[in-house]
This record gives sequence, C-alpha cells and structure tokens, in this order.
Amino acid sequence: MIPRYSRPQMTSIWEPANKFRIWFEIEAHAADKLAELGVIPTESAKLVWEKGDKPYTQDRIDRIDTVEAEVKHDVIAFLTELAEQVGEEARFVHQGMTSSDVLDTCFNVQLVQATDILLEDMDKLLAALKKRAYETKDVPCMGRSHGIHAEPVTFGLKLATFYAEFKRNRDRLVVAREEIATCAISGAVGTFANIDPSVEEHVAAKLGLKPEPVSTQVIPRDRHAAYFAALGVIASSIEHLATEIRHLQRTEVREVEEFFSKGQKGSSAMPHKRNPVLTENLTGLARLVRSMAIPAMENVALWHERDISHSSVERNIGPDATVTLDFALMRLTNVVENLVIYPERMDEILNQMGGLVFSQRVLLTLTQYGVSREDSYRIVQRNAMKVWNREGDLLSLLKTDEDVTARIPMDKLEALFDLGYHTKHVDTIFARVFAD
Amino acid sequence: MIPRYSRPQMTSIWEPANKFRIWFEIEAHAADKLAELGVIPTESAKLVWEKGDKPYTQDRIDRIDTVEAEVKHDVIAFLTELAEQVGEEARFVHQGMTSSDVLDTCFNVQLVQATDILLEDMDKLLAALKKRAYETKDVPCMGRSHGIHAEPVTFGLKLATFYAEFKRNRDRLVVAREEIATCAISGAVGTFANIDPSVEEHVAAKLGLKPEPVSTQVIPRDRHAAYFAALGVIASSIEHLATEIRHLQRTEVREVEEFFSKGQKGSSAMPHKRNPVLTENLTGLARLVRSMAIPAMENVALWHERDISHSSVERNIGPDATVTLDFALMRLTNVVENLVIYPERMDEILNQMGGLVFSQRVLLTLTQYGVSREDSYRIVQRNAMKVWNREGDLLSLLKTDEDVTARIPMDKLEALFDLGYHTKHVDTIFARVFAD
Amino acid sequence: MIPRYSRPQMTSIWEPANKFRIWFEIEAHAADKLAELGVIPTESAKLVWEKGDKPYTQDRIDRIDTVEAEVKHDVIAFLTELAEQVGEEARFVHQGMTSSDVLDTCFNVQLVQATDILLEDMDKLLAALKKRAYETKDVPCMGRSHGIHAEPVTFGLKLATFYAEFKRNRDRLVVAREEIATCAISGAVGTFANIDPSVEEHVAAKLGLKPEPVSTQVIPRDRHAAYFAALGVIASSIEHLATEIRHLQRTEVREVEEFFSKGQKGSSAMPHKRNPVLTENLTGLARLVRSMAIPAMENVALWHERDISHSSVERNIGPDATVTLDFALMRLTNVVENLVIYPERMDEILNQMGGLVFSQRVLLTLTQYGVSREDSYRIVQRNAMKVWNREGDLLSLLKTDEDVTARIPMDKLEALFDLGYHTKHVDTIFARVFAD
Amino acid sequence: MIPRYSRPQMTSIWEPANKFRIWFEIEAHAADKLAELGVIPTESAKLVWEKGDKPYTQDRIDRIDTVEAEVKHDVIAFLTELAEQVGEEARFVHQGMTSSDVLDTCFNVQLVQATDILLEDMDKLLAALKKRAYETKDVPCMGRSHGIHAEPVTFGLKLATFYAEFKRNRDRLVVAREEIATCAISGAVGTFANIDPSVEEHVAAKLGLKPEPVSTQVIPRDRHAAYFAALGVIASSIEHLATEIRHLQRTEVREVEEFFSKGQKGSSAMPHKRNPVLTENLTGLARLVRSMAIPAMENVALWHERDISHSSVERNIGPDATVTLDFALMRLTNVVENLVIYPERMDEILNQMGGLVFSQRVLLTLTQYGVSREDSYRIVQRNAMKVWNREGDLLSLLKTDEDVTARIPMDKLEALFDLGYHTKHVDTIFARVFAD
Repeated sequence: MIPRYSRPQMTSIWEPANKFRIWFEIEAHAADKLAELGVIPTESAKLVWEKGDKPYTQDRIDRIDTVEAEVKHDVIAFLTELAEQVGEEARFVHQGMTSSDVLDTCFNVQLVQATDILLEDMDKLLAALKKRAYETKDVPCMGRSHGIHAEPVTFGLKLATFYAEFKRNRDRLVVAREEIATCAISGAVGTFANIDPSVEEHVAAKLGLKPEPVSTQVIPRDRHAAYFAALGVIASSIEHLATEIRHLQRTEVREVEEFFSKGQKGSSAMPHKRNPVLTENLTGLARLVRSMAIPAMENVALWHERDISHSSVERNIGPDATVTLDFALMRLTNVVENLVIYPERMDEILNQMGGLVFSQRVLLTLTQYGVSREDSYRIVQRNAMKVWNREGDLLSLLKTDEDVTARIPMDKLEALFDLGYHTKHVDTIFARVFAD
Repeated sequence: MIPRYSRPQMTSIWEPANKFRIWFEIEAHAADKLAELGVIPTESAKLVWEKGDKPYTQDRIDRIDTVEAEVKHDVIAFLTELAEQVGEEARFVHQGMTSSDVLDTCFNVQLVQATDILLEDMDKLLAALKKRAYETKDVPCMGRSHGIHAEPVTFGLKLATFYAEFKRNRDRLVVAREEIATCAISGAVGTFANIDPSVEEHVAAKLGLKPEPVSTQVIPRDRHAAYFAALGVIASSIEHLATEIRHLQRTEVREVEEFFSKGQKGSSAMPHKRNPVLTENLTGLARLVRSMAIPAMENVALWHERDISHSSVERNIGPDATVTLDFALMRLTNVVENLVIYPERMDEILNQMGGLVFSQRVLLTLTQYGVSREDSYRIVQRNAMKVWNREGDLLSLLKTDEDVTARIPMDKLEALFDLGYHTKHVDTIFARVFAD
Repeated sequence: MIPRYSRPQMTSIWEPANKFRIWFEIEAHAADKLAELGVIPTESAKLVWEKGDKPYTQDRIDRIDTVEAEVKHDVIAFLTELAEQVGEEARFVHQGMTSSDVLDTCFNVQLVQATDILLEDMDKLLAALKKRAYETKDVPCMGRSHGIHAEPVTFGLKLATFYAEFKRNRDRLVVAREEIATCAISGAVGTFANIDPSVEEHVAAKLGLKPEPVSTQVIPRDRHAAYFAALGVIASSIEHLATEIRHLQRTEVREVEEFFSKGQKGSSAMPHKRNPVLTENLTGLARLVRSMAIPAMENVALWHERDISHSSVERNIGPDATVTLDFALMRLTNVVENLVIYPERMDEILNQMGGLVFSQRVLLTLTQYGVSREDSYRIVQRNAMKVWNREGDLLSLLKTDEDVTARIPMDKLEALFDLGYHTKHVDTIFARVFAD
Repeated sequence: MIPRYSRPQMTSIWEPANKFRIWFEIEAHAADKLAELGVIPTESAKLVWEKGDKPYTQDRIDRIDTVEAEVKHDVIAFLTELAEQVGEEARFVHQGMTSSDVLDTCFNVQLVQATDILLEDMDKLLAALKKRAYETKDVPCMGRSHGIHAEPVTFGLKLATFYAEFKRNRDRLVVAREEIATCAISGAVGTFANIDPSVEEHVAAKLGLKPEPVSTQVIPRDRHAAYFAALGVIASSIEHLATEIRHLQRTEVREVEEFFSKGQKGSSAMPHKRNPVLTENLTGLARLVRSMAIPAMENVALWHERDISHSSVERNIGPDATVTLDFALMRLTNVVENLVIYPERMDEILNQMGGLVFSQRVLLTLTQYGVSREDSYRIVQRNAMKVWNREGDLLSLLKTDEDVTARIPMDKLEALFDLGYHTKHVDTIFARVFAD
C-alpha cells in the first residue's frame, strides 16, 4: 500500500484515530453492560462516555505511543491514556477482558468498514459495466479463442460476461463480510472466566457484529483466511478484465482504448504512444492482492489458544489488501466508464480473415446435407487453410469446391455467411445476466 | 497426488472411465433435446443411448487414446470412438457444440462429485470432533497463549473450537460446490449461435447443475478460483488442528497421543519413539492443497473468449486438491477418533506452574478492593516473576505480600485459586457451538 | 504430475526401483566404511554387495510394501527385505544410522539426477534458441511496449533476449544443483553419536555429493526451498517465452505460428482454427511449477531436530516439479525448433502504422535542430495522433507541418525513416549474448 | 511495510529524495558520455552537474509531483524540474534514452543499496549466532525429532546449525545481489538505436553495476524474481529459528527465554505472562516476505518488449520486502544476542524421560552382542514403552530384562547411559561449520 495507489476514505479506516475510536467504543459499551450486571459501578461506565467520548486527536495518539514505548503493550498504553482522560474511575474499564478482545473485535470492525466501501466500489463498477454493456449490446465484435479468431460475438456480450463475473464477486464479498463480522469478548482463553457472555452479546449488537460462538483468546483466523482469499479471487477478476482491455488495445487490434487525456504523454521517448497503462497497472495490483491470500491462510494454524504471529501479517495485509483493492476497483470503474470503443474497427477485424469465422456453420450445414462429420470437417478445413494462406476468402473458395457445391445449393451457401445468425441470442443472454 | 495419500473412491472420479461416461451423458442428453427441437432426427438421439449407454471399458479408453494420438484433440477422439459404437447416426452428436461445452461441464460434474465426498468426510470429522468434545467437556486442561500457560480451559472446549471451525469449513464447501455446479452448452464463443439455449437447460437439469448465465467458450474461471481457495482455507484448518495435536504430544507436554498400534515402529534407530507422524503428515498435505489456490487464481485471466492455459493446471490440481483433501480429512478424522487423551497429565500440567494461571483473577480482585489497575498489575506481576524463578507458588507468595493481605481477606484469597471459576461457562459455549 | 505431461526418463528417477537402489548404495557404501573402521565385520560389508547388488524388481518392491504395511516404517521395511536377500549378516547394515540419513541423502541424489536431465534440457533449449536467433538475426520485426508499436527490432534479437534469460536460468540451475548435492549420515540428531563422520564423507564421495557440514536428523530444508524457488523462476521464464509466442500468433499479428501438423484439428467445432495450444499449455505448466515454491519454503521451519511435515510435500513436489519442468522445457524446445516464422508478415506489421515507429528519431532530430524537448514532443505527438486517426502517414504529415519543415531539411527528414538505423547494433548485442 | 517494522536507514533508500538522486546520477553520467561521443555539447553535460548536483529537497520533490499530476509521466516530470534547475541546456539530457533506462537502472541501484544493508544485517546475525554457539558449545540439551525426545545434542550445536543455514543465506544474498546489479541504457526497445552502447557501459561502471547484456525496454524480470525468491528463502529461515525459540520457551520446556525487560508487560490481563512475542512477530514477518516471491515471479512474463504491470508490484514489494527483511534480521539478531539460556533446565529435561534417550545405543550394543536387529529392537522397545507408562527408568528396567542381561554385562550396560558419548563429535562439527 502506497499513497500512489490509495484513496483517503479507505486509508483513514486504518489510521490510529479510527482504530483507537473503535477500541474506545468496545471498552465503553462493555463497561455499560458490566455496570448493568453490577460488576462495576454505573457511575464509572457513565464517566467513560462522558469524559472519553471524543476524537482521538494527534496529541492523544502521541501520548499513547509514548506510553507504549515504555510498557511495550499497545492496549495497556491505550488504557493508560484513557485513564488520564477519565480519571480514577477508569480502573473498571477492560475489567475481565483481554487485549485480544479489543484488538480482534476492532480488526473485524475495520474489515467490515473496509468491506462496505468495497461493496460500494463494486456497485459502481457493476453500474459502469451494465451501462457500457447495454450501449454496445448489438455492436458486433470478434470472438476469439486461443487468441485466434473464432466466431462473432458482440462487444456488449463481452461486457456482460464481466458484469456476471463481478456480480459473483460482489456475492463473494457479501459472504466474506459475514465471515469477519464477529465480536469476541471472552477473556484470556475464551472461557468467559472473568466476564459474562452477555457483555460480548451487548458489544456485538452495538457494533453491528455477531458474537463469535466460540473463541480462544482470539477470533479464529480461518475467517480471515476466507476473507483475504475472497479478495484474491476478486483481484484475479480485475486482472481478467484488465487483460482483456490490454489485448483489445494492442496496436494490431485497436478495438478499444483507455481514455487518453489531452496533455498526457505515453512515452518520454516516443511521442506517438498511447498505452493501456491503467489496465497494466491493474494487472500488477491484482498480483499483489492475490499474493496476500497465502500468508492469511498460513495465519490459521495459531498455536493453542493463540500466538501473535498473525498480527504482523495483518497489520500489513489488512490495510494493503483493502486499500489496494479499493483503488483498483475504482480505477477499473474509471477505465470502463471512459473506455473508447471503436465499432468500425471491430467490423474491420470481423472481416479481416475472409469469412473464416463462419466455418463451423458450413460444417454443420454439410452434415445436415448428409456428409459425415469427419468428411465435413476435412472439406471445410482444407478450404480454411487456403484462407490462412491468403488464397481467397472462404465463401469464394467453397463455391469452387465440388464437395460443397454438390451438396449445398448456392443461395443456401451464401446465406450461411450471416452475422445475425451469431447474435440472435444476445437478448436472451442479457435477460439472464441482468435479471435482477 | 500419489497413491500413498489417496483413497480409491475419490481417485476413481478422475479416471478416464468416469470422465468419458460424463462426456457421454452430456452428449446424449444434448442429443435428446436437439431431437426434441427437431434439429437432429429423434431416431439418432435414441440410438446414442441404445448403443452408447455402456461402461467405458479399458479397450474403449485405449481406442480413444489411439485416435487422440493421431488427431491431437481429445473430444474429437472421443466422438470418433462413439461413432464406432453408435454408427452412422453419430454424426448428429455434438451438433452445434464445442469441445469446451463438454470439457467444462464434465470438469464441474467431477468437482461436484468430489465435493459430495468431501462433504461426507467433513460430516465424519465433525461427528468425531463432537463425540470427543462431549467426552472431554469437563476435563480441565491448560489454556495457552504464546505457548505460555495462560488460564484453564477444558479439553472439550478445545475440540469445540475446532468443531466450530470445521462447521464453518463445511459451510464454505457448500458454497464452493454451488460455485462450480454449473453447466455450459453455449457453443464456440458462448453465443448459442449453433445451439439453442434450451439444450443447456435440459442438460443442466439432467446433471443436477444450473445453466451458466453467460459463458464464453468456457465456464468462467473465477468460479474455480473460489473453489480451490475454499479448499485452501479448509487445508489451513487441518494444519491448525494437526499443529495443536503435535504440540500436545510433544514429550514435555504429553497431554494427548496419536494412537500407536502394536508392531508400529516410531524410528528405525530409536526404539523408544512414539511420534505424532500422522498430524505431521497432515501439516505437509495442508501446505500442498493450500498452494494450489494460487495457480487456480492465476487461471482466471484467460484471454478473450478462452485460452487453454487453465487446462494443464486443472488436470493436475483438480485431482490433486480433492484427492489430497479427502485423504487428509479422513486421516484427521481417524486421528481424532483414536486420539489417546491423558486427563491426569493435563491435571499435572495445570498445577505445574505454581498457580500462575490464577494471576488475572487476583489482579481483578485487587482492583475490586480499590487498588488501581496499574498497581494491582505490579503487585501480581512481582509475585508471578518469583514463581517463574521457582521461589514458591503464587498463593503462598501472595500470602506473604502485605500489599495483598492488607486488602484481600485470607479466605477470599484462597478461594480465588478455583478451577471451577474458569469452567463455569463451558456448557453455555457448548450450547452455542452445537446448537443445530 | 500426470502421464500426459511426463517423460519416462524423468519419471523413472522417482520410481521405487531407483529409490531403493539408491538406498541400497547408501547402505552398502556406509557398510564398507564401517567395516574399514572395524565397527562391523568386513565380511558383512562384502556380503551386502555380493548378495544385494541387483536390481529392485517388482517382486522385491512388493515385498517391501508388504512389510511396510505391517511395521508402518519404510526404511525398516527396506532393511527387512534386504536382510532376506543378504541373510544374517544384514544385521550390521544401517549400524548407527537413522532413517533420515538414507531418506534425505536419497532425495538429494534423486534431485541431482533430475537436475542433470534438466540441465541437458536447458542445453537443448539454448541450442534451439541460438540457432533460430542467428537465422533471424536480421529479420526486422516490430518492437512493442504496452502492446503498442514502439520501434523496430529484429526477430533474432527477441530470441537473443530469451537465450540470455535461459542462460541465466541454466546458471541458476547449476547453483540449485549445488544447493542440494549434499549427503548426511550423521545419526538420529546429527551428532554422529553412533557413527563416525568419516562414513558420511565416504558415502558422499561415492555418490558425488558433499558432506552436509552440520545436519540435525535431516538435511536442512532451506536448501530445498532454494532449489524449488529456482525451478519456479525457470518456470516463470517458460511462461514468458510462451506468452510472447502466443501474442505473436494471435490472428491480428500472425508473425509466427506453432508448427501445425497435417491431420491436426484445432477445434472440434471450427475447422478453420490453428491455435497456439502448446504455448498455452506451457503457460499453465509454469503456474504449477511456480506454485510449488511456496510449500517448499514453508517446509524450512521444521521443529527442533526435525519433524516429518516436509515429507508429504516433497513426495509430491519432488517428482511433480522436476517432471513437469522437464516436460515443459522439452515442449518449449520443440516449439522453438519448429516455430513457423513469417518475415513478410513482420514487414507488413512494421509498416502498418504509417511510420509511427520513427517518431522518436524525429523528436531527437528536432532537438538537435534547436527545438526544446518539450516543443519537439508536442510537434511530433500532434502529428502522431493524426496517424492514429488514419489521417495520413507520419512522414507525409510532417512534411506539411511548418514547425518541422522550418527546421529539418526535406532530405534529412526523409532519411529519418530508415530501418537500418534501428538495427545497427544488433551484431554488437549478439556478440554480448553469445560471447561464450 | 509499516513504520512499526521499519528502520530508517532502509526506508530512506526508497524515499523520493534517494530515488531522484539516483535518476539524476544516471542522467548526468549518461550526459558525460554523450558529450564525449560528441552527441551533445560538452558544456551541456558540465552544466547538468554544476547546476543539478544538489540534494532533492522537499520543495523539489513537490515540484516534480505537481508536474507529474499534469503530464501523468514521472520521468518527464523529473526532467521538467531538472530543466528548471539546469536551464536551456537540459534539453540534451535523456537524449536517446527511454524512461525505463532510468527507472530500471534506478530500481536496481536501490536493490543493491538495500542488499548491502541486508548483508551487514546478516553479518551481525552470524556474529551473534557464532558467539552464542561457542558460549554454549558444550551445554547438553535435548535433541528432538517429531517434538519427541530423541537423543542429546548441545545447545551450541543447535545454534551452529542456524549459523550454517544463515551462512548459506548470506551466500544466496550475494548471488541475489549479482542478479540485480545490472544497468540498462538501451533505449525504447533495447536496440541502442538512439544511443551508443558505450553510454550504458559508462553509466554502469560509474554506478558499480554491470551492463545488461541484452535488454528490451526493460531489464529482464527473471532477475528480480530470483532476487525476491532468495529473500523468501531467507525469510523462511528466520521463521525456522524463530519457531525453534518459540518452542524452547513454551512453559513446559522453558529452556530459553527471549529477554524480558523491566517494566514490560506480557499480557494486559494476566500479570504472570512472559511471552516469546518477538519470535512470534518474526514468524509473521517471514510469511509476508515469503509471499512476495509469487508476484515477483508473475512479473517475469511481461508482454513483448515490456509492459508496465510489474511496476505497481515492485513499487510495493521493493520497499516492503527489503525493509521488512532488514527489520526482521535485526530483531532476530537482537533476540539471539539477548537470549536467556537455562542450562540447568536443559539438564532437567534431558533426565525427564528416564533415560529413554539412550535407547538406540542399547539397541546397537545388543546387535554387537549377536542379537538380530529385529529382536534387539523389540527388546528395547518393550522396555521403552514401560518408561513412557512411568513404570520405571530405562536402565533399571533393562537390568531386570533377561534378554538384555543375558547378553550385555552389567557394567557395560550402565556405561551406555553416558552423555559424553553423544557430544564427542561436537568439536568436529564446529570446525566444519566455522571453518572460514
């Protein structure tokens, strides 16, 4: 995560001010319930809110850092500073709780906050994909397998496949959010020895989380592994769409282009360049986010009721993965919204290979006229290979092939070279994809 | 995937006989619908079933291999052999379809079959964990954080946390199954140019799949990335439980042992050894399955309407991940079912550190008697450090500390060293975990 | 690793017959030295060779498997069978050794054998690259950055870069071989308690290995992590070259093609297809090999003097990585040797964009005529953008731009559009790359 | 990379001031050579140094950022600011070069600078390991396989194995440094079309690099993949040593402890805790660094003469991997230097299991007295199992076993239980490890 690839809304989630604020809320809500249970004085719980419910300004954060440098324990440092704000009564705060109750619940709140932004991002991307898909629903475009011309599609159909893919990613993100939207206030080894389970329930409800059914000292890390794995899948889909655009922009194809603003320079050396740098950048960002799934999975096997090896990993990948993915989703949305699409060029490309893209239909028609599939294949292939060698277009060649003309009447043969045949189900597919 | 770590039920899913059988069913069901639509003769569709509905014996498989060696295309080889069985009418088979319609749908059927076994495995593991958890629900055991004695738990509680973790994994597996339970019969670039969408719907229904809302030439690979990522998370949980057992079996702990059969040898050199080799083995298997999430994610960004780079990956990780995970889950179930548990040893360990595990309760009690949290901490810590240095047990030391005795009455102090205090919510937690 | 992507020479290294043979040699050489040291009778050591020095036939392997099923320990099973061959005297075999002495040394011997094949593969690939590079040294070809036409190169230069890259990979393989070419015969915890260090030295020398300076029960796994990481880098280079060829074969480019044999079918549905399936396949194989670096690195942190978690990983990735890489290198060599290269098409592409590729030279020339770099850039860029919009070729447009014509004389301007200017250092570069 | 886990010396390498300084040096050295070649005026080259050779202060950096926001190209922004410093003559700077010439060479200079720090770190770690190894060379300590007591080692021997491992890692780092210590000034597609190869040679020499034998627009990324893979292996070794210490500090073992300073708090809840938090932290940091090998390998397959997907990856992992590894190595050095070692506790543990650790020697002795290996094994194992069941210590039990006493004289038997037997080769091993 570097500023270049970050948006402030997301980075602020990971800043100390937000973190300490969440810690404060956890402690203060817990104090409320502890007071209700008669474990601590009601007055103390009230005072925590009265004197502590204020922003974590830089000087408060500095103070916490100073204390931590001494005691080498972040939660204790936080509590010490809080005591300085609240006074004597602060000794009841954190009663029966353990650091991880605060840290783990806070981390999950941060992930939930981050995921809510990611869901908004996803909605914007989906809206952009849908808009551009409908705009280009009927724009014919080459379909390619193995990078080789195959049969016609429409450009809208291409975008519809990505809409569907990111729709699934949105669903995965919703599931991922549920995975980590839990709260644990269960004490040093998860037994609630020093704190009643109802405190956990109370804090969870206040923070919009579910109580973790059973925690040890920590919230189990399979949840986070699943979360970061979901982000890795989404990143891979970003790479997928980015790669598609990069391919379509290459000079020999030029069916689309990333928007290239006035004053922009594609290359310091070559003034003619207009490069798909945004989608190339997204490809790299995808690699980064994806790689974080592995340490997240390695974090699962904590020792006994917890060790702290996961912490240094999460201090990095928590911000890194969410900030990078947020940036990438917004950049991708921007690319899609402003993508320059060249329908004429798509048309040119469709006609580039002398009607080869209709080869399958000829094959099928031959079989319907009683030629075996094997023979049909050979007949069409031998003509197609001539087209590759630039000896003519497919229709012309077929017209001179007696094995074809002996079977298929000339008007039928010509009618096979029809684009509409290939796009006739596009509306059906759109109806499926954009159903809801 | 090697025979050593494989079970036949799972490997058979990935053998040619099963694969070709699924291909046959896809083609034959498709032919039925094509006949119904009047695209191919009804008689042909019938003949496919009549003459083709029989097992793929080794000689049939060999014949397919021979053809493939010549044409270098597996589906064409398959169709050629099928034509030899069915005769002339076979030319209508595969009408309007493309190889990937067959290959991708088949791969998903295989993954569904594999997942159904994994779900059974998971149920067995969950049953074993539940059984052993209830057996040991009230067996006190040391809880540890950072590998250091923390506070008491029960052994059943440990197992309950793993039950909850694998319950989540089961849920993830169900979601993963849905991810890949789709069917695509949409032709060369997904446009249904040569085949009606109703064929896809028909085949999907017959095979227990959902139609893929929009495919290109292939079923989109974000689905498979999500699938293998889920397997990676499950593998990580296997490592988690395996690591726990390995820790508990180490000589200095010896709270549990993997079952060690008569005649077994722990070491060729040291006749005294009884090693946790099964859980160590599981740790390695987990690393393998986990690593496969990365190439699965790299497979997402196929070029345009498809390239075939994913295929060599999936030919390996399809079998490797499912077979290895199946084996690992069953081995883990076996380990859990037969785990030798030593309650007396757990008791010994609980008492090993001179009552240190009760330090928090003393701390909290001091605060309730009006000592500040900071002072309470210092008082308890200085006594605890003496226990680490073997200068006595915590209770005895506290009894001689005036800062303590001046506040807490002697009988109250002694009462703090009570195991029951720590285990009082175990039933509550069990009720949460085993709710359904 | 599946038969489809395997070569027998490499798979045989990983078969039981070779493994047991290596075990036998380790034990027999150790026995020789033990006899020399007077630890065991000379006669016994002799008998081991006399009666045991014969191939591990299937029936011997079956016998070992049978014993292992009982004792659940592979080395003990092996020794038991050996004793059946050698008789009573076999009791002196393995004296003072531990299983890992045999297993680890054997694994390293297998890796060395595998690496020697990989080095041969690499030499063949390098030879093919060099041959094709020299053949096409002066064939002009478009150089592209960001997929966008940049400036001319030659096709031979492209191949020279891959030659250099695989030369580095060969060097890495040599280093990787050294990493794992060690032998440990140091006993149960590496102390040589029951065996003299000279035995290790003797066996190492006989097997062409170096003694491991200090082992625990095992040879340290950082060596193997480095080994598999090197393989992962090589795999990534295979993906690199494969990706280049896939790009150059795409229909819009068609500068090269994988050899397409008579009778081959590119698609079951579309008879016109000729797809770069070999390089796509290589892309997938590269993902597989690369992913194995992660579990190999996770294997490093074995517990204390060893645990066996690495074993299940290595039983898989040992064969998988080497067999797959061997297959991939040979397939790639085959692709390179038979690559169909189309110089005319390269020429067409060079001229496709109306001389845009000479934009930098015009820019530099303008600066030499006193125009500031900024202004020069703007002048060339505005003309280049017109070329993108198909409003003419660059030279014609520049000729009508007064800011250009006012500075650069017409004949000088025309002379800038010269291919030879770009290829003048190709021989220099070839001399650098193919120096040795 | 977060401040918490960073050292300023390393982070400063990655700051804009250092980056722009390196860019400046590349451009200025190149200008010198270009002037020498007569391509640009000598005066211009001089002026670049005279007016530009000064630190990149924050205001200069801000100015560059401002320009980049407009032109969206970092090198052009840099050159623009430089022109503002140098004046008119600056138009000759960057003559014939392309951005990547600057960016790639700079990145390699930064990696070299970073690696030089890492090498210093490594030397400190090696010195600490050597010092502590010699201090404890003869301190007996339990050797364990599978976490189970095996046979005695010494604590110094443990440290010697890590010394040897990190010595190999140092060697790998030296190789990794060579991998990336190259310079490319070869122009837009690596052909030197607009710049003479001698410029590259000159700049390389000035910066302590080697010329890249053949570059495209970029320095080939297999070099960087190998570099980051090497860092991943080193990280795995850090995890290895960290894991060892974590194990040895667990309460039941307590053979060593991380230094625990006065005033430090192990747990906010449990005042008795002293946790191995540094080594747990290192375990997490190792996971992070290791994971970066994957995107580095994915970066290798850049398209054609370059795409820019690698850049966003490297902007992150360049700093992240080196800063994190630097921090981790220094933290580990600190842990090793200050490790509290408890020889008495090691002695206690050695005696904990009733002499089981001598089982192999008894086994071997029985075979020397004519008992078959199989029978010897059974005899010792049956007594050992009794020890596990706490029915006595091994020597006492053997003394009552007639199969033993009938063979081995009592005094010989007793003499087998001798620690010195196991440590007799420690000096030999130390001589091997610390040879140079």
